[in-house]
Amino acid sequence: MTIHLGAFLNAGVQGTAGWRHPDAAPGFLTAAHYVRIAQVLEQGLFDFAFVPDALSVPRSLGDSFAPAVKWGSGTPRLDPVPVITVMAAVTTHLGVAATVSTGYHEPYNVAREFATIDHLTGGRSGWNVVTSFQDAEAQNFGQAKLPPRPQRYARAEEFLEVTTRLWDSWSDDAIVADKESGVFGRPDEVEGIDHDGEHFRVQGPLSVPRPPQGYPVIIQAGASESGRDFAARWADVIFCSHESLESAVAFYADVKARAAAHGRDPDQLLILPAATPVIGRDAQHALAKHEAFADLVSVEAGLSRLAYHVNVDLTAYDVDGPLPTLEEVGVEGHYREVVEFAEREKLTVGQIGRWYGARTEGRLIGSAADIADTIQQWVDAGAADGFVIQATHVPGSFDEFVAEVVPELQRRGLFRTEYEGTTLRENLGLARPERGEWKARRK
Amino acid sequence: MTIHLGAFLNAGVQGTAGWRHPDAAPGFLTAAHYVRIAQVLEQGLFDFAFVPDALSVPRSLGDSFAPAVKWGSGTPRLDPVPVITVMAAVTTHLGVAATVSTGYHEPYNVAREFATIDHLTGGRSGWNVVTSFQDAEAQNFGQAKLPPRPQRYARAEEFLEVTTRLWDSWSDDAIVADKESGVFGRPDEVEGIDHDGEHFRVQGPLSVPRPPQGYPVIIQAGASESGRDFAARWADVIFCSHESLESAVAFYADVKARAAAHGRDPDQLLILPAATPVIGRDAQHALAKHEAFADLVSVEAGLSRLAYHVNVDLTAYDVDGPLPTLEEVGVEGHYREVVEFAEREKLTVGQIGRWYGARTEGRLIGSAADIADTIQQWVDAGAADGFVIQATHVPGSFDEFVAEVVPELQRRGLFRTEYEGTTLRENLGLARPERGEWKARRK
Repeated sequence: MTIHLGAFLNAGVQGTAGWRHPDAAPGFLTAAHYVRIAQVLEQGLFDFAFVPDALSVPRSLGDSFAPAVKWGSGTPRLDPVPVITVMAAVTTHLGVAATVSTGYHEPYNVAREFATIDHLTGGRSGWNVVTSFQDAEAQNFGQAKLPPRPQRYARAEEFLEVTTRLWDSWSDDAIVADKESGVFGRPDEVEGIDHDGEHFRVQGPLSVPRPPQGYPVIIQAGASESGRDFAARWADVIFCSHESLESAVAFYADVKARAAAHGRDPDQLLILPAATPVIGRDAQHALAKHEAFADLVSVEAGLSRLAYHVNVDLTAYDVDGPLPTLEEVGVEGHYREVVEFAEREKLTVGQIGRWYGARTEGRLIGSAADIADTIQQWVDAGAADGFVIQATHVPGSFDEFVAEVVPELQRRGLFRTEYEGTTLRENLGLARPERGEWKARRK
Repeated sequence: MTIHLGAFLNAGVQGTAGWRHPDAAPGFLTAAHYVRIAQVLEQGLFDFAFVPDALSVPRSLGDSFAPAVKWGSGTPRLDPVPVITVMAAVTTHLGVAATVSTGYHEPYNVAREFATIDHLTGGRSGWNVVTSFQDAEAQNFGQAKLPPRPQRYARAEEFLEVTTRLWDSWSDDAIVADKESGVFGRPDEVEGIDHDGEHFRVQGPLSVPRPPQGYPVIIQAGASESGRDFAARWADVIFCSHESLESAVAFYADVKARAAAHGRDPDQLLILPAATPVIGRDAQHALAKHEAFADLVSVEAGLSRLAYHVNVDLTAYDVDGPLPTLEEVGVEGHYREVVEFAEREKLTVGQIGRWYGARTEGRLIGSAADIADTIQQWVDAGAADGFVIQATHVPGSFDEFVAEVVPELQRRGLFRTEYEGTTLRENLGLARPERGEWKARRK
């Protein structure tokens, strides 16, 4: 089998250490920056670029925005939708996926936005569905606090039902555009949805015809129980992060089984863990590169990053003591990883901070051959259908991966040597949803 | 003095007759279509492209979506934001403006979207602020009916205050990005807004640094009393439509005086009426071209268009009788124009329909020299600082205007021969707002 590759790209600075990297490009607010990255990803035959998001400047240590601004930790963040549109405008095969929260948008607008991008890109769009995770986000939208997870997922559930129904509100051949007769469309092929639910009342139809892909590719990353159930039904691609092969194998088996239990073909749900390659001439050279990268982060910068990821102000805790158990954290997956690692290594809060600031997801440190070995091992073990490649810095990390690891994967028959199709679904090997597919995916 | 030119471009079909034009390009859902148009507009040194919008498939005759779909009347409509992003990605000087409603979005999201586009385009973005005008739009967002105009403008007022304050939440030099020290930003140059109003509670700061233009160019088109007051304070550009030079002169004087009364320099508020050129070898040839265009519309298609513009189902009225007075119409400017024309010409509802279907705003029918004459006359009379050029069909209308009228305007010294600046504000001759400008513009 062959693997699929996404590229994880912040629309702004890359992590707390990434912008400080000596080779990091400075123009992270300019179109040229994203054009440059899109081009190397397409040259490397990546399936898609994936832009995460959050709807606030993170408020972290001391319940303040200051640390995030001071250290470039989680801010700035451009709106990912125009960023992926620029990346798509200069490529012809690269898929482009943006994160949009179901918590603080309207489903009509989101359905329309992605339907539009799917048309403009000829079917290369993806939507990473998130429910948000910080109080600071809630506070930009009239709420005092982030709603509890079950409430966020209940809204997301209804949100997905409305958006998929809106994408289905035009049949694939509703437009005739016959200049001779003057008939533009077939009214009986366009219908309202008349949705009247707990969170939304939406009449429809969408003002945009059915997307080329039927539905844009739906990506989800929730690691919680609610997240897994949601993703097993709605997602085409699951993005996850695992510190060990064992936990990745268990997650893979669990989610594929959930998909099958919902009547889906498990092969039609791709699981792509995060991987951050640091590539050297040999293992030692790569380790030295990683160490130099980790040295770019201060304890405070790292704790600031952790504080906003878990949505808890950590200044209450002694930096020389252990991290107490936190309740109701923001990103559960990240928190679990921290607890596991800190207990194993007996780390203090301060040490956790330094580690977390330079933490990358799924570190792959070694030569290109070493990295290809690990990728092959994970795929053979049933842990992954491919990976979402993260960068210590841009564009350098992607340049190196495309120049060194991609050819190695191709030599082993693990990765494509040309794009198989024109839409993102075609390249991912995913079927195009028939009109009405939403009925099978909803709860 | 020289004039400014915008280009009015539906992201979808151009009017009810436009898609039927023999030369109309068919690919109105593809990026290539908008790329092609962006390139000719930049070649013609246009200040900006302007994409209107509405958040529904129009429901018109018989309270049904069917006529809009059948005649291609107001549908489909792509989301304008990705469309202008594509147009900006392939140009270097053309400004790009998208319509986004204050009625059915969140100010944090809208502020962020335009700040992002302004960064990605190096300061070429504009936001056309609308409050929506159809019940069918309200019904896609949980409302049974469009709220009354005063309520819509009260929300818009607060919306603009929040978005401009969010754009000001970072100072222009908040980012230092010093790789050596590890200091990314200056926390005391970034502040929340802690807005707590009638419609919105927004903490801020925005997660995007201050836009290159300070504020993206703000465009407004309201012709009502509330619209004029709002525009005189907030707008940089007013887009309007007038059937006669007299009404245009009166409107121009009124709005400039309102701006001055609010303490603004009236020259810093540009008034650009709509103009739809139909260019012939001579007047007779142009008239024949216009007639052929008007013949493309049926009575029903035209009435469908009028019905959704005024937000009233017109099937209750006898097609052979006069149009009764309508209360609480959608677009007041359009309605007033219809009434004026129908009374003058003694038209029945059916005749109004046929006329309205092919109605264009500010028809300029003649040779290139005739059209330049009228443009000059309007500018000299104090009716306009330039025009927003509308197309009977695309890309043909813009191709012809750029090839024939632009050189004529240049010969007369009425239009630029190269772009003056790099940002849209620079090309429009508008000052860059200082941080805090919102205080002077709010009510």
